[in-house]
Amino acid sequence: MRTLLDCVPCIVRQALDAVRRTTADVQAQTRVLRQTLRHLAAADYASSPPALAQVVHRAIRELTHGADAYRDMKDASNSLALEILPALRERVRTSAAPLETAIRLAIAGNVIDAAITQHPDRDHVLAAVEHALAAPLDADVDTFRAAIARARTILYLADNAGEIVLDRLLVEQLPAAKVTVAVRGTPVINDATMADARVAGLTEIVEVIDNGSDAPGTILEDCSDLFRERFGNADLIIAKGQGNYETLSSSRGNVFFVLKAKCPVIAAHLGCRVGDLILKGP
Amino acid sequence: MRTLLDCVPCIVRQALDAVRRTTADVQAQTRVLRQTLRHLAAADYASSPPALAQVVHRAIRELTHGADAYRDMKDASNSLALEILPALRERVRTSAAPLETAIRLAIAGNVIDAAITQHPDRDHVLAAVEHALAAPLDADVDTFRAAIARARTILYLADNAGEIVLDRLLVEQLPAAKVTVAVRGTPVINDATMADARVAGLTEIVEVIDNGSDAPGTILEDCSDLFRERFGNADLIIAKGQGNYETLSSSRGNVFFVLKAKCPVIAAHLGCRVGDLILKGP
Repeated sequence: MRTLLDCVPCIVRQALDAVRRTTADVQAQTRVLRQTLRHLAAADYASSPPALAQVVHRAIRELTHGADAYRDMKDASNSLALEILPALRERVRTSAAPLETAIRLAIAGNVIDAAITQHPDRDHVLAAVEHALAAPLDADVDTFRAAIARARTILYLADNAGEIVLDRLLVEQLPAAKVTVAVRGTPVINDATMADARVAGLTEIVEVIDNGSDAPGTILEDCSDLFRERFGNADLIIAKGQGNYETLSSSRGNVFFVLKAKCPVIAAHLGCRVGDLILKGP
Repeated sequence: MRTLLDCVPCIVRQALDAVRRTTADVQAQTRVLRQTLRHLAAADYASSPPALAQVVHRAIRELTHGADAYRDMKDASNSLALEILPALRERVRTSAAPLETAIRLAIAGNVIDAAITQHPDRDHVLAAVEHALAAPLDADVDTFRAAIARARTILYLADNAGEIVLDRLLVEQLPAAKVTVAVRGTPVINDATMADARVAGLTEIVEVIDNGSDAPGTILEDCSDLFRERFGNADLIIAKGQGNYETLSSSRGNVFFVLKAKCPVIAAHLGCRVGDLILKGP
């Protein structure tokens, strides 16, 4: 999807949040903010929001010579998610509809998004879990189940750290031998990278690759050849979160989007309300 | 006060809100948004936020050849405030502390601010009234009363339309012959102009002047000679709202600021919490 005008002030705010995590030097923060404003003044809004944000976060990373400003936050999110994982797995196990429950819990994890909320805390995540288990899920789970059964290869595009731990619940519902999980190639905001896939234990149960890109989404032309090949050959793609939706919503592949609609722009694009749980097939 | 980095995304959002009220033409909206971004990229953040916003709103006004994009909203706010005015006046009349009650109700009116909330509706305003009557008011009302009694001339700087109707309750507590109310010289956001002072009935009870400026605050060097003279000669200045606080907080005059702290930047500058009622003397 293209960048709407509403996305522009939001990307400015995200840039400010990110550079403040990176450095306490107000002059450096100001420099990055001005650079962001100049970039957005000239940018092509036909690009997706993650494509615009990618350039901004690159500038921030240069400031710290590649340091991962969100590492502490990502560690905290992973720890929190790992702490609640066993109880949630038990809820999947005892559920009358385990696949649907796993989808709901994977969506709950999608609240851990530093682009939207600066500090998703324990109460916030637990509330999201209860909401995701109770709220309507406007989805054709049977079609999704059939697509899983039919697929010889499944590519699961992870989204954020912390969230990736709860993604495990949904990955555990899939035939492990067919599944590849993909993470971002480089740290950007709190998006999950290989380090997070390891902490989540995903590397022990399925193949995990990185997509070779530093965009907070999946911009195919920016991804590695290996990733693009996997993407092109996958029978089924499960794309988690807003960033993947924003960058792949017009993709022609067999993509199921699994996310929580967290901003008015995405909600309008999906034709739902902010906060709705989404499983959207092709 | 200077513009903090947090103000920058907020001014971008305000510009988008304002241009959308002005025109439905997305190309024109995009042009103004890009112009705002370029302006903020190069702006001097030692200026106050209203000084930066002034330039943005000027560009929007040029787009419509000077049309007042907020006129409908201002009319609606005035009507709503006029509707509840008699009941609120009765609460002042029957109050054991009429001056304090009038201050509280004038502060309640300060929620009608299009820079913060796009559509302050009836419920919102009524809730603000009840909150303002019940919440702590960290203020030395006796010192304010004494300053009023001592002053030979009082200059009351109005803030927004709608709000200016509730300002009447506080103006009615002042000796009418000593009072001049000042409004903005040109429509900007939903700030009150002479038209709103008339609708509020202020022109019938006190002198009303305009400040000759199109800033959403009081930038003295931008105001008319007449206004500056009144400002310089006033024994007491009552400055309503955030815009006047942002532009006059370091003024050396005998200024009492009357406002609700509506954003984290202002709250931090005042050393209070967002939502607090403020009467702050020199």
